[in-house]
Amino acid sequence: MVVTEERLARAYLLRVAEPPARALAAFAAEVGPIAAAKAVRAGKCPQSVADETAARRDNDRAESDLEAGERDGARLIIPEDDEWPAWPLLCLDVAGRRGLQSGAPPLALWARGAARLDKAAEAAVAIVGSRAASGYGENVAGEFAFGLARRELSVISGAAFGIDGAAHRGALAAGGVTVALLGCSLDAGYPSGHTILLGKIAEQRGLVVSEYPPGTRPARHRFLVRNRLIAALTEGTVVVEAGRRSGARNTANTAMALGKLVMAVPGPISSATSAGCHDLIRNSAATLVASVDDVIDIVGKLGTATAERLWPKRRTDGLEQDALRVHEALQRRQGKSAEQIATESGVPVPRVRALLPALELEGLVQCDESGWQQRRVVGRTQESA
Amino acid sequence: MVVTEERLARAYLLRVAEPPARALAAFAAEVGPIAAAKAVRAGKCPQSVADETAARRDNDRAESDLEAGERDGARLIIPEDDEWPAWPLLCLDVAGRRGLQSGAPPLALWARGAARLDKAAEAAVAIVGSRAASGYGENVAGEFAFGLARRELSVISGAAFGIDGAAHRGALAAGGVTVALLGCSLDAGYPSGHTILLGKIAEQRGLVVSEYPPGTRPARHRFLVRNRLIAALTEGTVVVEAGRRSGARNTANTAMALGKLVMAVPGPISSATSAGCHDLIRNSAATLVASVDDVIDIVGKLGTATAERLWPKRRTDGLEQDALRVHEALQRRQGKSAEQIATESGVPVPRVRALLPALELEGLVQCDESGWQQRRVVGRTQESA
Repeated sequence: MVVTEERLARAYLLRVAEPPARALAAFAAEVGPIAAAKAVRAGKCPQSVADETAARRDNDRAESDLEAGERDGARLIIPEDDEWPAWPLLCLDVAGRRGLQSGAPPLALWARGAARLDKAAEAAVAIVGSRAASGYGENVAGEFAFGLARRELSVISGAAFGIDGAAHRGALAAGGVTVALLGCSLDAGYPSGHTILLGKIAEQRGLVVSEYPPGTRPARHRFLVRNRLIAALTEGTVVVEAGRRSGARNTANTAMALGKLVMAVPGPISSATSAGCHDLIRNSAATLVASVDDVIDIVGKLGTATAERLWPKRRTDGLEQDALRVHEALQRRQGKSAEQIATESGVPVPRVRALLPALELEGLVQCDESGWQQRRVVGRTQESA
Repeated sequence: MVVTEERLARAYLLRVAEPPARALAAFAAEVGPIAAAKAVRAGKCPQSVADETAARRDNDRAESDLEAGERDGARLIIPEDDEWPAWPLLCLDVAGRRGLQSGAPPLALWARGAARLDKAAEAAVAIVGSRAASGYGENVAGEFAFGLARRELSVISGAAFGIDGAAHRGALAAGGVTVALLGCSLDAGYPSGHTILLGKIAEQRGLVVSEYPPGTRPARHRFLVRNRLIAALTEGTVVVEAGRRSGARNTANTAMALGKLVMAVPGPISSATSAGCHDLIRNSAATLVASVDDVIDIVGKLGTATAERLWPKRRTDGLEQDALRVHEALQRRQGKSAEQIATESGVPVPRVRALLPALELEGLVQCDESGWQQRRVVGRTQESA
């Protein structure tokens, strides 16, 4: 982590306002973090920003925060970094302009772990649910996370006991990427029973993330505020088990408000931990999902990066080297001749001529007057082809 | 059962065409059963009717059918009887005019049991599901049927093993009305393991019903044809458990085609017998119901006779004799004076004057310029008032 002036400024800003700090975030976006930090320190900022920062503006521990983070193997990811998940977090800006409570992007994010946050958020699904989960719920969460991670989707959750923990463990078991978003600082050691799990997430291909500066204790309102980040960083949220008043329903509501997909898993009607899921489904606030394929179906329909990632990748999985190079030399909308393809792929023309009809049979390429093109893959049925 | 010329004609018509006999039903409705029977016997009928009756038109066993029925304690209910459920079956006429396969009203219905079919179909819910039900499914079917029967809704099902049987038994346990609709004749003794159950249904407050003449054996296509009657005679159908290819899904589709409500009960996603229910819910073909109250909520919203039956009855349950008589002397839209009410109810005027404000506080009556009226009760929230 390079200690820049921007990073110091954002470390300061992260500490002087309790998230979600809508006015401060907008101010920092407008004038830049350095000028924003200077204005807040001097008390010379718009009234709305002053209100958010009044209580803590003298609390400047930016340098020691960054040092402490470094010691703990944590980094402060800021919007000025390549790793910043700008696109997923954009929905928070949009929601903020629409006046939504949850509409405030984070000023920066503390993270520990091997994964890049922007990559992890490229195609991600949230799996959330009750702390007091049933064995059935934990099994489902683990299996869904395993299956999604196997399909190269990141699994994002809140690191709590019950469903959250089972989801992280399932993704880890599949060797996939999982992100734990905390409602306290990375050094708060919470939940204490999950210290080893959080360590594993950071060590393997995952990330532990928080917008709270070092020394911030967990609190109920922070879990709710954190929920907007889980929703924002994912294509959709799967609620596995939720009682009638569960926090998981808050995540679901936030996800819906942010325009994300909300899914819920049904269970026995005799189970209180499924009652919240059944309510969500009955009220059309969530779509029923009964399998990993159901989730893939729904998330894939978005037609975003997730779909691109899900279908073509898998369909070309079995291709040999030359065929793959030919396929990658093609474009979606513009046709190419065999000669052009040979030049771009480095595969000899006769071999290109032999491979193209084979790829056409596989449904991966097509030919029209303009020449050969990659074929657009839509929906799941073609995936199994 | 009075043996009239109409009944003999319909007994004959019921035997000469395999249901659903759309052309014959329409012809009988148009020219009347006696003329229709005469025309069919003589082979002098429209071509579509001739097609439906060609194979069996010489098979005239009407008299012996009625005699055999009488011996077995069965009666042939015909559209000319007061007991005919004309209003519920109207949806089959409508569907027929829209060209739907299931759109053919029965020409008559064989029935055995103490209940009146028209009354039983006034406020009824179908509970259907897999033969190969799980313990969970049978429990849910039994509990739902019990709860609905307690709320004075009839429970209609198909007398099959599994969910159907559990539904009939649940309604019987509540002392309620239950109707078994068979896919064979009443004397077919099918399903053989349910002979005692069917006997109980007929003896207690229920009915065993079939549109098939004596001696008709069960067959797969007859179950499907029978399903349209289950759907038509009920406000809505609850699918408790159904595999992906279950016949219960056919009932659900038929119910939807007839404009009826379709509901489905969720279950563990690991259970194959819930997969069909989950499909119905996910595809918005059914509304998720997780309790008897959910069903009541949905069926009550229809605002039909069912709602009338559900709410006021329950609300006046606790009233003492005089209050009940005063309440029943009132009308919905036309006001009455205390004197008129006293005359009609037989309750003395001073007592009527004392009871009316009490009933008003209960929300059961209201007063305007025209006088005192029954108050319309809408929705469930008022029920608990």
